[in-house]
Amino acid sequence: MSEPTIAVVGATGTVGKQVIASLMQHDVEPDQVRFFSSERTQGEELDYQEETLPTEPPREGSFRDVQAVILATPSPVARELALDAQRSGAWVVDLSGAFRVDANVPLVAPGVNDGVLDRAFSGRIVSIAHPATQTLLATLGPLRAKFGLAFADVTMLFGASSRGNQGMEQLTKQTAGLLNAKDPDIEVFPHRIGFNVIPAVGGFEGGLNEGERHVLVEAARIWSGEALPALTATALTVPTYHGLTMVISAHLNRPVDADGVRALLKEDTALKVIDDPSQNVYPMPMLSTDDVAPHVGRIRAAGPRVQLVVAVDSVWRLADTAVDVALELADRS
Amino acid sequence: MSEPTIAVVGATGTVGKQVIASLMQHDVEPDQVRFFSSERTQGEELDYQEETLPTEPPREGSFRDVQAVILATPSPVARELALDAQRSGAWVVDLSGAFRVDANVPLVAPGVNDGVLDRAFSGRIVSIAHPATQTLLATLGPLRAKFGLAFADVTMLFGASSRGNQGMEQLTKQTAGLLNAKDPDIEVFPHRIGFNVIPAVGGFEGGLNEGERHVLVEAARIWSGEALPALTATALTVPTYHGLTMVISAHLNRPVDADGVRALLKEDTALKVIDDPSQNVYPMPMLSTDDVAPHVGRIRAAGPRVQLVVAVDSVWRLADTAVDVALELADRS
Repeated sequence: MSEPTIAVVGATGTVGKQVIASLMQHDVEPDQVRFFSSERTQGEELDYQEETLPTEPPREGSFRDVQAVILATPSPVARELALDAQRSGAWVVDLSGAFRVDANVPLVAPGVNDGVLDRAFSGRIVSIAHPATQTLLATLGPLRAKFGLAFADVTMLFGASSRGNQGMEQLTKQTAGLLNAKDPDIEVFPHRIGFNVIPAVGGFEGGLNEGERHVLVEAARIWSGEALPALTATALTVPTYHGLTMVISAHLNRPVDADGVRALLKEDTALKVIDDPSQNVYPMPMLSTDDVAPHVGRIRAAGPRVQLVVAVDSVWRLADTAVDVALELADRS
Repeated sequence: MSEPTIAVVGATGTVGKQVIASLMQHDVEPDQVRFFSSERTQGEELDYQEETLPTEPPREGSFRDVQAVILATPSPVARELALDAQRSGAWVVDLSGAFRVDANVPLVAPGVNDGVLDRAFSGRIVSIAHPATQTLLATLGPLRAKFGLAFADVTMLFGASSRGNQGMEQLTKQTAGLLNAKDPDIEVFPHRIGFNVIPAVGGFEGGLNEGERHVLVEAARIWSGEALPALTATALTVPTYHGLTMVISAHLNRPVDADGVRALLKEDTALKVIDDPSQNVYPMPMLSTDDVAPHVGRIRAAGPRVQLVVAVDSVWRLADTAVDVALELADRS
C-alpha cells in the first residue's frame, strides 16, 4: 500500500498551522498532504519542509484521493464537509466540536479513553475532544483511579488563540493601542481583552459559555458508564496568546497528602510534574509551548481535597492529537 | 475639636496614591494631610485638590501632631513605623498585613466584621484586611448566613498592581518589548508577566504564596469563634494592571438555585450583582475600577454547589477602607 494522503482544511488558521507543524514532525512527505482553506484566504501558500504548497477552497470531489481529512474549521463548516469527505470514502478527524454529542461519532481523548477507536462505530467520522477536556481528564484520571473522585471544580484561563488568528491579532492590536493610550476597537471578543479578564469563552447558553459547555458535555460523555464524578467549570479569557491554564480543585473519596499526589502524578508518563514553588518552578503557559503533555504543579492537599495548577499548549495538544489519529485511521483504509 | 490631621506613609506608591484620591473624595482639606514617602522618592510633590504638597521621609517626631497614620508601605517598614506612630499618640491604620496575625491588633473587614473597632483592644494599631479577604468574605457572608457554608475554593487572579508601581511599570515595559520581539528583563516578578500567567503572588512558604497565605490566615482569624468553613485559595498573577478577579466555588449546607443566590446577593447593598451573560454582562476588572463594591456575577448553582465570578478594584477597596477607618479613629482622639 502506498503512503496515505492527509488533507487539512482550515490550513491557514491557528489550529491548522499547528496541524501542519505536527505533520512535518511526523515526517509526512509533501506529496502526502493537501491544504484547504476558506475562500477568504485561498491562494495563500504554506511552507512545508523544503516546499511551498498552495491552499485552495475545498470543492466537490476534493477529498476523492485522500485517506484522512483533518477539519480545523468552525463547527458549521466542519458539519458540512465531514459528510462530503465521508461520502468520498475518507476518514474524518473533526477538531471543531461539531460532533461531540453525536453518539455515532467516537470522541477521542488520548490517555483517557484509549481504545475508543477500536470499538465498533458506524461512520468514518471521529471527533477529537477539546484540549481542555483532554487535559482535565488526563490530570484527574490517575487521582480518580487510585483514590476515587467525588467531584471537581475547574477554573480555565484561555488565551486569545481560543478565537484563532483573529483573536491573537485583536490582542496585539488592542494591547499596542492601549500602550499608546488609544481606545481599542472591540471586534472578536465581546469586550476589551487587552489588560483585562473576560469571564467568557465563546457564546452563552443556559448560563454557560462555550468553553465551559465543551468541557462539561465531553467529560460527561467520556466518563459515562462509569461512576460519574460531578464537575463544574468556569472559563475565562485572559490576555495571553497560546496556552491554557487550569486551576483544579478536586475532592477525592479518600484523604491524601501532597507528596502522595505528586508521586502518583509523576508515575503518569502522559503528564509532566513541574512543582517546586520555592524555586519559582511551576506550570505556566509560557513554558508549555509546543509540548503535548499537560504541565502539573502547585500540588496541595489536605484531607480529601486536592488543588493543582495545570498549563497546556492547547492548540498544539489538539493539533498533535489530530495528526496521530488521522495517521492511525488512514492506515486502516 | 479642630479637624484631625491624617498622615499617609508610602504616599507615592500604588496604594498611597489611591489613599490620597480617597482623602480628596472624603473632602479632607489640604492642611489636614501630611504625605511621607521613602528616601528614594523624597521631594516628589503630589497634587492635592488645588494645592501641590511635598512628600518627605518620616523622621523621629514626624507623627507628633497627627491623629491617624495610614501605612501604605512594605510590611517591615510598617512594623517599625507603627510603633513609632503609636508612641506619638497617633492611631495607626496598617495596610501592609504586618499585623494581620497579631491578636492585639483588630483586623478590619468592612461589611464582614463591622463593630470590631468598638470592642476593647490594647494598642492604637489597626490592620486592614487584604482586599482579597474582604471581597471573598463579603461575597460568601450572605450565603453563609442564609444557607450555611461547608467549604469554598477560590481562584484569585491578581494584576501587576499587587507589586505596586514597579509591577505595573514592569508589565508595560515587558509588553511593549514583546510586541517589538524583544526579550524581556525579569525584575519584579519571578518570570515574564507580559502575555503570561504566573501561579504566584509574592514569595512561597509551606507551598502557599503570599497572596494565598494572606487570605487564608485572615479569613481564619475573622471567621474564628464561629463554625469555621474550610477554605482553599490559589493566587495567580495575570497581565492586567489594577483589579482582582476571583472565581469562587462554594459548597453550602443546603441546596440552592442560581435565582435564589442571585436574589440573596442583590439584597446585599455592599455588593453589586452584574449578571446577564447572554448580554455580555458580567464582572470584569476593567469595569470595577474606582468602585469599592465587589462586582458579582456568572452565578451558577446546582444542589449545594455554587460558582460565581467576582471582580474588585482591590487597590481602591484597600485605600478607601483605610481612609474610612482612619477618619473614624481620628475622631476618637
